[in-house]
Amino acid sequence: MGTSAHHAVIVGGGFGGLYAAQSLRRAPVQVTLIDRRNFHLFQPLLYQVATGGLSPANIAAPLRAILGRQRNVRVLLGEAVGFDPGRRRVILRDGDVAYDTLIVATGVSHNYFGHDDWESFAPGLKTVEDATRIRSRILRAFETAERETDPDRIRAWLTFVVVGAGPTGVELAGALAEIARDTLRHDFRRIDPTKARVLLLDAVERVLPTYPADLSMKVAASLARLGVTVQTGVLVSDIRPGAVTMDHGRQTETIAAQTVLWAAGVRASSLGRALAEATGAPLDRVGRIVVEPDLTILGHPEIFIIGDLACFLHQDGQPLPGTAPVAMQQGRYVARLIEQRLHGRNLPPFRYRHRGSMATIGRAAAVADLGWLRFSGRVAWFVWLFVHLIFIVEFHNRVLVFMQWVWNYFTRNRSARLITGEVDELAVL
Amino acid sequence: MGTSAHHAVIVGGGFGGLYAAQSLRRAPVQVTLIDRRNFHLFQPLLYQVATGGLSPANIAAPLRAILGRQRNVRVLLGEAVGFDPGRRRVILRDGDVAYDTLIVATGVSHNYFGHDDWESFAPGLKTVEDATRIRSRILRAFETAERETDPDRIRAWLTFVVVGAGPTGVELAGALAEIARDTLRHDFRRIDPTKARVLLLDAVERVLPTYPADLSMKVAASLARLGVTVQTGVLVSDIRPGAVTMDHGRQTETIAAQTVLWAAGVRASSLGRALAEATGAPLDRVGRIVVEPDLTILGHPEIFIIGDLACFLHQDGQPLPGTAPVAMQQGRYVARLIEQRLHGRNLPPFRYRHRGSMATIGRAAAVADLGWLRFSGRVAWFVWLFVHLIFIVEFHNRVLVFMQWVWNYFTRNRSARLITGEVDELAVL
Repeated sequence: MGTSAHHAVIVGGGFGGLYAAQSLRRAPVQVTLIDRRNFHLFQPLLYQVATGGLSPANIAAPLRAILGRQRNVRVLLGEAVGFDPGRRRVILRDGDVAYDTLIVATGVSHNYFGHDDWESFAPGLKTVEDATRIRSRILRAFETAERETDPDRIRAWLTFVVVGAGPTGVELAGALAEIARDTLRHDFRRIDPTKARVLLLDAVERVLPTYPADLSMKVAASLARLGVTVQTGVLVSDIRPGAVTMDHGRQTETIAAQTVLWAAGVRASSLGRALAEATGAPLDRVGRIVVEPDLTILGHPEIFIIGDLACFLHQDGQPLPGTAPVAMQQGRYVARLIEQRLHGRNLPPFRYRHRGSMATIGRAAAVADLGWLRFSGRVAWFVWLFVHLIFIVEFHNRVLVFMQWVWNYFTRNRSARLITGEVDELAVL
Repeated sequence: MGTSAHHAVIVGGGFGGLYAAQSLRRAPVQVTLIDRRNFHLFQPLLYQVATGGLSPANIAAPLRAILGRQRNVRVLLGEAVGFDPGRRRVILRDGDVAYDTLIVATGVSHNYFGHDDWESFAPGLKTVEDATRIRSRILRAFETAERETDPDRIRAWLTFVVVGAGPTGVELAGALAEIARDTLRHDFRRIDPTKARVLLLDAVERVLPTYPADLSMKVAASLARLGVTVQTGVLVSDIRPGAVTMDHGRQTETIAAQTVLWAAGVRASSLGRALAEATGAPLDRVGRIVVEPDLTILGHPEIFIIGDLACFLHQDGQPLPGTAPVAMQQGRYVARLIEQRLHGRNLPPFRYRHRGSMATIGRAAAVADLGWLRFSGRVAWFVWLFVHLIFIVEFHNRVLVFMQWVWNYFTRNRSARLITGEVDELAVL
């Protein structure tokens, strides 16, 4: 690694950043990948950690393990806090790193739409810690109900509300219903876990609103079969400890629920705002950076934004969704463009090729929309399984995840249902 | 479960408590098992979680999953804080539970021998949280060394000290040496992980002092081969952030080490002291309750103490060691005695049957002492593997743990090397 080589700095080791780094494998550049975590997280399966089906290590792979043999990549565990585009530097909490080309792929966090105080009562699911915390909350709710004697309080502990009926919300609600009906069925002596209520709420008119309407219908029917109560077209107007208030338009309704999970929206990371201020780049409504057709910032051809943080306007004027395939394709595109530029060439604008959407609803049910083909049920579930296994980064994890799934499928068990975290927290409940 | 049935309350779901509960399966008693965690932990493998070889869920099984089908057992997630032997009640943080027979099996925690302030610099290994915290510390040490430029500071970050050369200390030191030499070999660009120093210190004259001297010699040789520096006969006289001071008798020596792990001693849980005060039971030097030949407290035939919390004087006048086999045999004995008493009969005093001791030193090396047979090397390692797999409580975990071991063995990889915990902690380092 000569010091004269072109230096590409990637901030963020999610799907976008990781695929960009790997696609620069043969390029004559030196790559530095900066992340505040030492692992890549396979986020599409994070809900399975939150519901005790998988362990964190099953869906996380150390970045150094993935990139260890790629000699032109250096991994740096550090937290980026800002940018100095004039001096071409990424500002870390403890130092800075100079770049020739910068790729920012720091993703998004939860959006409470102005109600940030709801976060502590209704946690969202983005990190491994979010997942283990939600897992503890769900399991503790059943434990507390078992020890409670007042019927109203028992009911509140056995009521689970998921806000947001996109893929994450649907998957969480489905898994919650399965935990109550199957996994914990024989585990308690006083309460009947199968009597737990799972509510899935959304302000829009149907579940999975970005999917074709007939698939939404099928998903709603599958959820109903699992025992999930779906309420669409309702706005959550307040969340307090133990209660959720819904606005039905003319009247409001408050239900007692001790466990509320937030899957309703995302907001770009604060780093995006810092970069926009430093470069004058425009932001969209949720703080994503609106990028040029080649994924750069206007006036800064050396700065790329990819993945969930980028607002890329599609051919039809709609922004691309924040999904793993979009981030992966953008990572690969940027890597190719950097290499072409070093040879004095260019590339046509980025184009997203949509290969399909999928969502699972509990055990052995799923929907898939491949554009030219839509299907649901058990076949879709096996396709979902297969696609997710293919993309789990390390071979090792693939085998372990597959075995855990086979086991869970046949036994309806979830072995990773540990309540972890500081023991003192138990006293809080 | 009639309310008139004899009610046995077990506090603690470790090896002792769990085996007692399971052995009461056919007894005409109602059993309540109280634990502050919702899972049984297979503690002998905890060091593998601390060193990234296994996930917490691999070595933990939900108590409700283990006992769900045993209809005479009720599991209660709660924290016992005291006892009222007069009214025959266990005092929980939030309520109390009446008993006819009480089994206390709350185990031990770390003993810093009067230097409790060392705990934050030199964490011990008892809980799942201890293990993931130690795992983060070890991995962060390499990460910090990679970003450091001062050679002395790099050396301090690459120096790992394990205090205490019993089985846990030996296993930790062996795994640490393997992480440095094999697992992380290709992962860094500036530092050479194979240059890391692992020191194993103990005040006694040889490693594994409770084992026969020739096995201790073999273990010391295996550790040396792995690159561990063993220093016995030295007393740790001070631990500060970044430094450990050793007392060699005539002189002291301070070495710069950012990562210090404590495996030097145990102390009975504070609940043991509470029980001793309430019953007048004698305590030994480390706070364990000295029990009668039938594992009861003098004057309280209805209270049993089992496992690590019990100081049971062996035939030769020595207390039994705090190991899983002792706790398991005591759990079974107490269950049988309770059942016999309900039939108006009694049992001879408890006798521990020692079947052997084992310890592993990294990959494919171990020592075993079966009393009538001693062996070491690869055969001992396979026996160690086999015995531990047999006793891992759930079949499911057995398969997963086995696969992970096979994978780690052939690839020298450790896939569970995640730095988790609050991200803000990164700023502390």
